[in-house]
Amino acid sequence: MKRENSSPTMKDVAAEAGVALGTVSKVVNGLPVGDSYRIRVEDAIKKLNYQVNSYAQGLKANRTHTVALLIPNTIQPFYASLVYHINLSLLKRKYRMLLCSTDYDSGLEQEYITMAQQNKVDGIIGLTYNPNLIIEESTPFVAIDRSMGPGIPCISSDNFAGGQLAAEKLADLGCKNVAFLRTGSSLTNEPNKRKAGFENGCLARGLQYELKILNDGEPFEEFEKFLEEHIDNGKLSFDGIFCVTDSLAYSILKALRRLNQRIPEDVQVIGFDGIRYLGDKDYVCSTIVQPVSEIAEMCVELLLQENMPAKPPLVCLPVSYAYGGTTAEALTEQEQ
Amino acid sequence: MKRENSSPTMKDVAAEAGVALGTVSKVVNGLPVGDSYRIRVEDAIKKLNYQVNSYAQGLKANRTHTVALLIPNTIQPFYASLVYHINLSLLKRKYRMLLCSTDYDSGLEQEYITMAQQNKVDGIIGLTYNPNLIIEESTPFVAIDRSMGPGIPCISSDNFAGGQLAAEKLADLGCKNVAFLRTGSSLTNEPNKRKAGFENGCLARGLQYELKILNDGEPFEEFEKFLEEHIDNGKLSFDGIFCVTDSLAYSILKALRRLNQRIPEDVQVIGFDGIRYLGDKDYVCSTIVQPVSEIAEMCVELLLQENMPAKPPLVCLPVSYAYGGTTAEALTEQEQ
Repeated sequence: MKRENSSPTMKDVAAEAGVALGTVSKVVNGLPVGDSYRIRVEDAIKKLNYQVNSYAQGLKANRTHTVALLIPNTIQPFYASLVYHINLSLLKRKYRMLLCSTDYDSGLEQEYITMAQQNKVDGIIGLTYNPNLIIEESTPFVAIDRSMGPGIPCISSDNFAGGQLAAEKLADLGCKNVAFLRTGSSLTNEPNKRKAGFENGCLARGLQYELKILNDGEPFEEFEKFLEEHIDNGKLSFDGIFCVTDSLAYSILKALRRLNQRIPEDVQVIGFDGIRYLGDKDYVCSTIVQPVSEIAEMCVELLLQENMPAKPPLVCLPVSYAYGGTTAEALTEQEQ
Repeated sequence: MKRENSSPTMKDVAAEAGVALGTVSKVVNGLPVGDSYRIRVEDAIKKLNYQVNSYAQGLKANRTHTVALLIPNTIQPFYASLVYHINLSLLKRKYRMLLCSTDYDSGLEQEYITMAQQNKVDGIIGLTYNPNLIIEESTPFVAIDRSMGPGIPCISSDNFAGGQLAAEKLADLGCKNVAFLRTGSSLTNEPNKRKAGFENGCLARGLQYELKILNDGEPFEEFEKFLEEHIDNGKLSFDGIFCVTDSLAYSILKALRRLNQRIPEDVQVIGFDGIRYLGDKDYVCSTIVQPVSEIAEMCVELLLQENMPAKPPLVCLPVSYAYGGTTAEALTEQEQ
């Protein structure tokens, strides 16, 4: 092997910059050093074309080939599907997955983060709405759906585009007056952009719209009350409803039927997630489909990627629309 | 600490029996040794009241506090629920879970079994229909739904009682002529007992019954043909149907509606598993509910149990019935 062909090491950078090895390490790990030292190290890295190695990304040299997944549960279909696809993505790379379904137990979640810091796992993929988690920037962590802080990539569907697509579909299918219904965490998160995308789409297409948003802890009955208040002489004033998840759409569809509204003749309903009954049967409703296997692949790729000094802070992956029986495609075709 | 209070070790047994330590180890691990040696060791074990330690059960002294779960996927609701509850059962005992969703990939499954043999995990809980797996008796393994060989406990619902309960319910609800529909693996497994239990229940209650069982690979259309053949003048000859899973019941309910049969007025349907839509909403159908959290607890208990020389080969846990809208409870009440 020719020595000159081997890539430069951190030691070579230290020699070139005329600083201690520890100083180079601090610079590549983003720890504080004097500006003059930092500049000398950065110049040396450039000159030698030193590739910041896995250590700088938080991936340690003595690999465990194990990644932990933090997820609230495996019972809700979107979570179940994420677990499945992340598992496949890891297994095909010969990585093992430690599963921690947390039900938002912050103590448990913090334990797994500590494991990552102690190199007991190579990294963590986490979907959590826990506001108290402490994740150091150097921890190899990839988040799903909610940004966990600077230096930690967040992967999600393109929720804004999904909301917009829902509005456009309802407009295309003849709706004039629509509603957006939402429950869920009030913490800042990517799925919240479904609302902004929907509003944007309504405005662009001249759709009248109303929003009904329940805060944490408000009961489902509030939605029923909202719908009842918009019924006049048996007729619902909305001809289209966008629900923030398929799970909410399932309950709203039941409520609409109790209120004697025909679907899709009287009111069309679109959900979000792309859930199928029993995992592989019919869609729950017409829906914006999340690209779950692509989200899984991206999480694993970004977590395990070496030589990537600046990982993308937010990755939004394209969604698609699927007909699931609660919109008027078939009726529209008959009319034509 | 008083020395005489400490429990005897394998060394004490070796000294008492006048044999080498390795000979004692072989005896407690069931490996071949000469009969005279075996008798001397067994006598010494008795005399000293030596407790065969965890090593003899396959659980090794240098614990990893990690258990692997082999499961086909996490997307089918019954599997998703098992993963969730086994995860909780392990976490509350401070154990970690390596998840391997295998899609019946025998290579992958065998790798995890090798890990257990090499003490890289403390044991394995596995639900697999893979006929080629090689599991040595000394491997700490607990199976779900299908016996994996001598020395390996198998945990399942009481499938026989579940089948029987389905027949009894249909009889109680006024059915006279019923059918049992089944798909699934032709390998010997516990869920197959649903059929025998159902037949038993039908015979006990004087119900006429027919069986329609599809083998691996036969298409769903065979069921539709079977149902059509039993329709005369628009009327289905069966007034009750027991489907081997809720997933099959879901598809059968759709087929029955296509055939203009009213449910439950014309025909009542009972499934098996206790699946709820979207994880926590309505039952898919009236159903025999599997005690998933109890199955999970039992798997973990038996796997981690020390000082249990003879683990039970088969544990069947009690099922229950839940009304899910496809049987005639409400109609019957109205009549009364």
